[in-house]
Amino acid sequence: MPTIRIDLIEGRNLEQKRELVKGITEVVLRTCNTRPERVVIYINEIPVEHAARGGILRCDEEKPSSN
Amino acid sequence: MPTIRIDLIEGRNLEQKRELVKGITEVVLRTCNTRPERVVIYINEIPVEHAARGGILRCDEEKPSSN
Amino acid sequence: MPTIRIDLIEGRNLEQKRELVKGITEVVLRTCNTRPERVVIYINEIPVEHAARGGILRCDEEKPSSN
Amino acid sequence: MPTIRIDLIEGRNLEQKRELVKGITEVVLRTCNTRPERVVIYINEIPVEHAARGGILRCDEEKPSSN
Amino acid sequence: MPTIRIDLIEGRNLEQKRELVKGITEVVLRTCNTRPERVVIYINEIPVEHAARGGILRCDEEKPSSN
Amino acid sequence: MPTIRIDLIEGRNLEQKRELVKGITEVVLRTCNTRPERVVIYINEIPVEHAARGGILRCDEEKPSSN
Repeated sequence: MPTIRIDLIEGRNLEQKRELVKGITEVVLRTCNTRPERVVIYINEIPVEHAARGGILRCDEEKPSSN
Repeated sequence: MPTIRIDLIEGRNLEQKRELVKGITEVVLRTCNTRPERVVIYINEIPVEHAARGGILRCDEEKPSSN
Repeated sequence: MPTIRIDLIEGRNLEQKRELVKGITEVVLRTCNTRPERVVIYINEIPVEHAARGGILRCDEEKPSSN
Repeated sequence: MPTIRIDLIEGRNLEQKRELVKGITEVVLRTCNTRPERVVIYINEIPVEHAARGGILRCDEEKPSSN
Repeated sequence: MPTIRIDLIEGRNLEQKRELVKGITEVVLRTCNTRPERVVIYINEIPVEHAARGGILRCDEEKPSSN
Repeated sequence: MPTIRIDLIEGRNLEQKRELVKGITEVVLRTCNTRPERVVIYINEIPVEHAARGGILRCDEEKPSSN
């Protein structure tokens, strides 16, 4: 019963999220010996004013970098 | 100082959440030898497009199942 | 598919943990309209040197308080 | 690569969050021997109806206490 | 800077974990438009006496099911 | 009642952890308008074989980098 949580800065669309959970589930099934219905994934979408790297909020970065 | 986080798909109303945190706190107090003000609970409500089981987002399931 | 994580300072025995997950699951089933096999609980047991309140590690508290 | 998550009841403004992540990053760099770009912080802002202490949702407390 | 946490019942070996993080990172890079060094994964390995489904600890299940 | 979780690769000693939680608590008190006994911190220490960056477990990195 693996549970996966993905902290992800806002900005990906539904199709990207769909591919993300599909792909991760395939990897978990291939490597972890479990059953599909036991693989639960939560995407935790985070606003740019609630994430920081190096002490600087993402909304304050001078030029947007890749996320 | 037990801290409890509940990942919960959206769709429950305030009264359900009220009963949920009340009931869980009673269980923790009965079984874990702690004090009420130390039992902290966070409900993490998750949109159906951010949760997946078996690699399929909840918003893409053909017929809604129980959550 | 509610997922519950309980951060719990070390010191409870197996019987206490058994009652804890049983009781919490009953509360979730009674209040959240879901199915038993979808209620997943993880106990995250934390050593006293890895938890702090008020800036003081639990292992450094002068007299042990309730947890 | 320390990752810090802060569960925080709603109500702080952007300037408070900016100082919060700046200050925490400085503490981590001073005490943990790592590099700035490896210190990642997520603020998890929680509505008052999704947090409880002592079994009572914050939105149901009779008089607001400090958070 | 996606951060992924995987709650995983104990019992997988190092090679499985190696393939797990490699595969998940490839999926994240393919779907989320980010850079490899920003993809951080933590495996949270959980003892069978600290995980429950349906209110029953995994160590108490009559016959071991797939994880 | 801010709750802070710090995912930290193993290798820091008790004195570093002591300074870490003391310093973070001071920052939270200075910026977030709360009371000391409400600031709870959990250090989640992670073995090098359970953390990855760029798809590579920390235990497999060729030369140890800063953490």
